Amino acid sequence: MEKDNKAANNRVFEGDYVTIALDQKRKWVVRIEKGKELHTHKGVIDLGNIIGLEFGSRIKSSGGTVFYVFRHSLPEAIYKFKRATQIVYPKDYGLILIFGEVVPGSRVIEVGVGSGALTAVIATYVGPSGRVYGYEINEKNLKIAEKNLEKLGILDVVELKIKDATEGFDEKNIDTAIVDMGDPWEVIPKVYNILLGGGNIVVFVPTFNQIERVVQSLEENNFGFIRAVECLLRDIEVKRGAIRPSMRMIGHTGFIIHAKKLVKH
Amino acid sequence: MEKDNKAANNRVFEGDYVTIALDQKRKWVVRIEKGKELHTHKGVIDLGNIIGLEFGSRIKSSGGTVFYVFRHSLPEAIYKFKRATQIVYPKDYGLILIFGEVVPGSRVIEVGVGSGALTAVIATYVGPSGRVYGYEINEKNLKIAEKNLEKLGILDVVELKIKDATEGFDEKNIDTAIVDMGDPWEVIPKVYNILLGGGNIVVFVPTFNQIERVVQSLEENNFGFIRAVECLLRDIEVKRGAIRPSMRMIGHTGFIIHAKKLVKH
Amino acid sequence: MEKDNKAANNRVFEGDYVTIALDQKRKWVVRIEKGKELHTHKGVIDLGNIIGLEFGSRIKSSGGTVFYVFRHSLPEAIYKFKRATQIVYPKDYGLILIFGEVVPGSRVIEVGVGSGALTAVIATYVGPSGRVYGYEINEKNLKIAEKNLEKLGILDVVELKIKDATEGFDEKNIDTAIVDMGDPWEVIPKVYNILLGGGNIVVFVPTFNQIERVVQSLEENNFGFIRAVECLLRDIEVKRGAIRPSMRMIGHTGFIIHAKKLVKH
Amino acid sequence: MEKDNKAANNRVFEGDYVTIALDQKRKWVVRIEKGKELHTHKGVIDLGNIIGLEFGSRIKSSGGTVFYVFRHSLPEAIYKFKRATQIVYPKDYGLILIFGEVVPGSRVIEVGVGSGALTAVIATYVGPSGRVYGYEINEKNLKIAEKNLEKLGILDVVELKIKDATEGFDEKNIDTAIVDMGDPWEVIPKVYNILLGGGNIVVFVPTFNQIERVVQSLEENNFGFIRAVECLLRDIEVKRGAIRPSMRMIGHTGFIIHAKKLVKH
Repeated sequence: MEKDNKAANNRVFEGDYVTIALDQKRKWVVRIEKGKELHTHKGVIDLGNIIGLEFGSRIKSSGGTVFYVFRHSLPEAIYKFKRATQIVYPKDYGLILIFGEVVPGSRVIEVGVGSGALTAVIATYVGPSGRVYGYEINEKNLKIAEKNLEKLGILDVVELKIKDATEGFDEKNIDTAIVDMGDPWEVIPKVYNILLGGGNIVVFVPTFNQIERVVQSLEENNFGFIRAVECLLRDIEVKRGAIRPSMRMIGHTGFIIHAKKLVKH
Repeated sequence: MEKDNKAANNRVFEGDYVTIALDQKRKWVVRIEKGKELHTHKGVIDLGNIIGLEFGSRIKSSGGTVFYVFRHSLPEAIYKFKRATQIVYPKDYGLILIFGEVVPGSRVIEVGVGSGALTAVIATYVGPSGRVYGYEINEKNLKIAEKNLEKLGILDVVELKIKDATEGFDEKNIDTAIVDMGDPWEVIPKVYNILLGGGNIVVFVPTFNQIERVVQSLEENNFGFIRAVECLLRDIEVKRGAIRPSMRMIGHTGFIIHAKKLVKH
Repeated sequence: MEKDNKAANNRVFEGDYVTIALDQKRKWVVRIEKGKELHTHKGVIDLGNIIGLEFGSRIKSSGGTVFYVFRHSLPEAIYKFKRATQIVYPKDYGLILIFGEVVPGSRVIEVGVGSGALTAVIATYVGPSGRVYGYEINEKNLKIAEKNLEKLGILDVVELKIKDATEGFDEKNIDTAIVDMGDPWEVIPKVYNILLGGGNIVVFVPTFNQIERVVQSLEENNFGFIRAVECLLRDIEVKRGAIRPSMRMIGHTGFIIHAKKLVKH
Repeated sequence: MEKDNKAANNRVFEGDYVTIALDQKRKWVVRIEKGKELHTHKGVIDLGNIIGLEFGSRIKSSGGTVFYVFRHSLPEAIYKFKRATQIVYPKDYGLILIFGEVVPGSRVIEVGVGSGALTAVIATYVGPSGRVYGYEINEKNLKIAEKNLEKLGILDVVELKIKDATEGFDEKNIDTAIVDMGDPWEVIPKVYNILLGGGNIVVFVPTFNQIERVVQSLEENNFGFIRAVECLLRDIEVKRGAIRPSMRMIGHTGFIIHAKKLVKH
């Protein structure tokens, strides 16, 4: 029964945000409405015609080019986010999730919402029983983030606040804090206060100088089991007979620092 | 109220599996029972004394060495799994999760359960409303996997089966299939049949020759938007005044290939 | 005496090729002549005025911008080569030199001269007592290569030939063969014949499929001690207080395969 | 004529240092003497029997195992050096050579001889017309280095000195200075004084903190065009049908910093 619903629901409804894809690079996020059109350099697509199609179906533009329609999903959505700030990459947010032990039901603080990319990841994975409290000092960023998150339909587990986290948090008994700001050491003592014992902090910083100051602050504030890593992702070009790593590669985004709250005695 | 419960429950109960940690490298997974002891090279720990302690607390061994007690969580648990097969690493399973769009509520097929590491990750992230169907042909592996998963308390969302997936699956309307076996091309046509339109397949293989055959099979079986990547993780040593990348690094585990099911017309 | 000459000769003479540099990215290779000018977006430099200056000196353009004059040296020269083909990078040619045991006095065959980048490196390091025999089938490439090499003043140790190396070589008793062509397996049997016992072959190829065919050909043609590597170079941005790896990075150029000629018995 | 000599001389003479190789990992450096034996776990080799063999020839041990004899060459020799200190790797010394513009005829200062690995590389590539001045404060290291270099037959272009380079150098008009010591900033002002205008300094350091101090010192001492890089080498396993990167990889050795002496005005 539920399975049949799954199949029946695996299609485009009016009002959905979907991804229209030409290839790996050329994709569009659109809201499906009767009478609306998507204009591309390969012709026009009548969005009303997509209603009722199964995801994964192909559609032809006015010019006869084949496009595909996909569910609007996390990695693509983030890639297409309106950007107020540097966007975190899948290679990093997958690890942040894992190291931070962010799981369905977790209560997570995020400091530095930015464009909401990490917020989207956390909100997706804490699921309906979890909660994300997002702190941001820039009101313009927060509005962009809110709009980005709305398209993914995950705003109900997110509380966004314009607030300077260095002055403290409104919540307590938090499982995980994720910090993505320029001077994370300013907020680390406050994070200690609101984490559960053994709880996780994950900090994302681009420079080595920041690693050093973050580690010092973590050590001084009774965090332990500190680990810092960096992650490099390389695409492999899969043309048959000529498999090879891609020449294009991002050499650096940032370092992920993870630590656990030790209980004071 | 719920918050207060969170704090009240953030402590060790009899029967729990917990992690006892000396440092990043030396950790033990134990089941807490009165009268049981953990013997280490740094002295003996009376596990009964741990009951009621907050997670993140320190405990002293008979020899006076300080250990810490942590919740038995995913990455540590997997690292400590009894191993029937090569274990997948956090750098890879974070990405498999993300690329495969495995989210709370997903229904996922896993081909090649092995020691259950990926199964544990998927089961954790599909949450109580999701489901993992794990196929494995080696009965001994499956028993080890079952035991590993039991300690994490996630067996209720997992169905493990001794069955050769190349002969087909029992399920349909699956969101994501994750394939970790030596000859994944054998199972790709069957995976196509049971995935929802636009659904995801993620294949993990160690060699370039396998990439080539997997990509060929995906193309022949109406999968599209194929992408292959590899991920390198490097630890940064965080000794103050001497921050540097670690000399130790794993040079290769495997390649992650992702594709989407296109609907036939 | 010789030392004093070194200092006296460390200056710009008429007819020299020199490098004029604004910063790491913006450099020009010019031949110094009285009455000639270098036009840049930061003003004009009268090249006649540079004659007699010590290398490392600064010069001002008509617009008052400071430039520096440096000896026209290998890595910069290659970077500024007129390109008929993909240019090999320092990270790779340093290793090719080392693995190929190309040292002062070596007699080296190069198959696939292209724009002459590797030829320039080999010619520089075999020194006046060594010799490079460069084979190329494309006459246009060879002319570009010749011009590039002329500016470095190393043509006297190089013999460039328009000739298909798959038909055999004119030389014998060669220390090292360096092969940079699309189908290197075509030339490997001929390379075996002209190498000294224990001599080195180094092959540079971009794809995994080529690695496989090269290795097969090497094994079938009595080469041994085969090793294949890839090399990744990452720039570190050295702005004080914000040391970090560069976001820009080349993800792949090619693989370096090295083997030694085993004597048949 | 010279070619014929090359072939005639491509064989083992009494007194030569040669490499006896079983496979890529198991190699021995021995001096060939009549009546001497090499004892391995795969049997005994009578070294007298090797005299007159062509390099690349195979030899059988008393146990019937096949070994090969190769010329004692740079990368293998360094790998087999007696080690007083951490040994620099081919991936790094190839680049140091290239960035430092060390070419046949160069006059090079080396600060921090250690076990002589970099000294061996420099001495080999400056050739008979060049010169290396090696400074080392630890007498024991220097003796080990001397012995290592002797086996390569390159001591005639090397001057080793027990001397603290922070007190200044005996030479001037130097083309390139290569600095491999813990606190390179101590020696940078002295290096400036003895380099030719436009001359090169290359510094090798393991930590980010050192990069920062080196760059500051270079900037304060009128060096320019500063560039820092790191190099990662990965082996590819070339078993046919299963080509893949090696799991074993060195994650870090050090950073290479290069700069040029700017002339003061």
